Amino acid sequence: MNIVIPLFPRFTALDAIGPYEVLSRLPGAKVTFAAVEPGLIRDATGMLQVEAPVAIADVSSADLLCVPGGPGRRRADARLVDWIRAIHPTTTMTTSVCTGSLLLAAAGILVGLPATSHWFELESLADHGAIPTKARIVFAGKVATAAGVSAGIDLALALAARFSGDDVARAIQLAIEYDPEPPFDAGSVDKAPTAIVELARSTIARRIAAGAPL
Amino acid sequence: MNIVIPLFPRFTALDAIGPYEVLSRLPGAKVTFAAVEPGLIRDATGMLQVEAPVAIADVSSADLLCVPGGPGRRRADARLVDWIRAIHPTTTMTTSVCTGSLLLAAAGILVGLPATSHWFELESLADHGAIPTKARIVFAGKVATAAGVSAGIDLALALAARFSGDDVARAIQLAIEYDPEPPFDAGSVDKAPTAIVELARSTIARRIAAGAPL
Repeated sequence: MNIVIPLFPRFTALDAIGPYEVLSRLPGAKVTFAAVEPGLIRDATGMLQVEAPVAIADVSSADLLCVPGGPGRRRADARLVDWIRAIHPTTTMTTSVCTGSLLLAAAGILVGLPATSHWFELESLADHGAIPTKARIVFAGKVATAAGVSAGIDLALALAARFSGDDVARAIQLAIEYDPEPPFDAGSVDKAPTAIVELARSTIARRIAAGAPL
Repeated sequence: MNIVIPLFPRFTALDAIGPYEVLSRLPGAKVTFAAVEPGLIRDATGMLQVEAPVAIADVSSADLLCVPGGPGRRRADARLVDWIRAIHPTTTMTTSVCTGSLLLAAAGILVGLPATSHWFELESLADHGAIPTKARIVFAGKVATAAGVSAGIDLALALAARFSGDDVARAIQLAIEYDPEPPFDAGSVDKAPTAIVELARSTIARRIAAGAPL
């Protein structure tokens, strides 16, 4: 089973590694990190680099495509978007985490489909003809999108069940001891106090404004 | 604020990147990935490499030390354990995720202290004089240990609150949209059916038996 996770400068680390930790444990999984220019890809904070050993130009198909998001998606190379468009017809499932859905949308994959994204960017999905849908995971045929960052773990467990059955997914959940106990209940805009939403909003805006890859 | 995450061959990716995603967002955070031999460090599945640009020998202090686990901790270089022992007196908080607690224990840091680990290895903590404690996060003075893999996210949010206050922690939780909705309720040995526990146990045992770095 061929799983491909494309990386780009200023991707959000957990968007990619959360699903990776789950999907890499599927029986027969082969995960490939790919990028427009292979090599070390720096994340959104600039303090982490992950190796993408393969050029996307050398990847012509995927059973499961999982596209992460991050501030860098705003300046994503057009070749990445073109590649997503070309790979999509080959996949069993095309998926995204966080603002990765805006890359799927830019590739024209989400026209007329319900989709989710990070809450900060959800409405932007409509710019590309998608139907912004406030949910942690949205399945639409062979396309699945997840909400912000940590939602990729929930998505990946749901994908694990689709590809390998519920029992394998449950065993992976137990192997990663995913029995969450967040110390606060502020993980969605509906639950966090207004002041916290504003603090998060201004921090994210600063992060985006930081501009070119660090 | 100087945050150090040591990596070693066959570390578990999410053990390190879950906390990283949270802690890197703290005001003034500087996160350093360090290793005995700096360079690309391959994770437990062998399908991911993360750059550790700094040698642990060149890191002489940390405000926050966060030690991940993974099958590779069983063959961890003695220099890593010696370094953890040497750094501990310099930290404000010394922490671990998953079987990273067994590295803290091997360094002699947990003698007489309650601590947790991945459920598969929890009892091994007693071999080094720690008190195995079944909980998602255990604080003991300036030491904090988290349960398996995904528990590092919960730990990191708790640490965010200690270092920067509850509001910053809540805003980070919202920024990573950490409002978990696992598709199954099988994330702990108390919740998963026996057959799932056995499936997870045999899979983990195979993973450990895989031996040398892939």
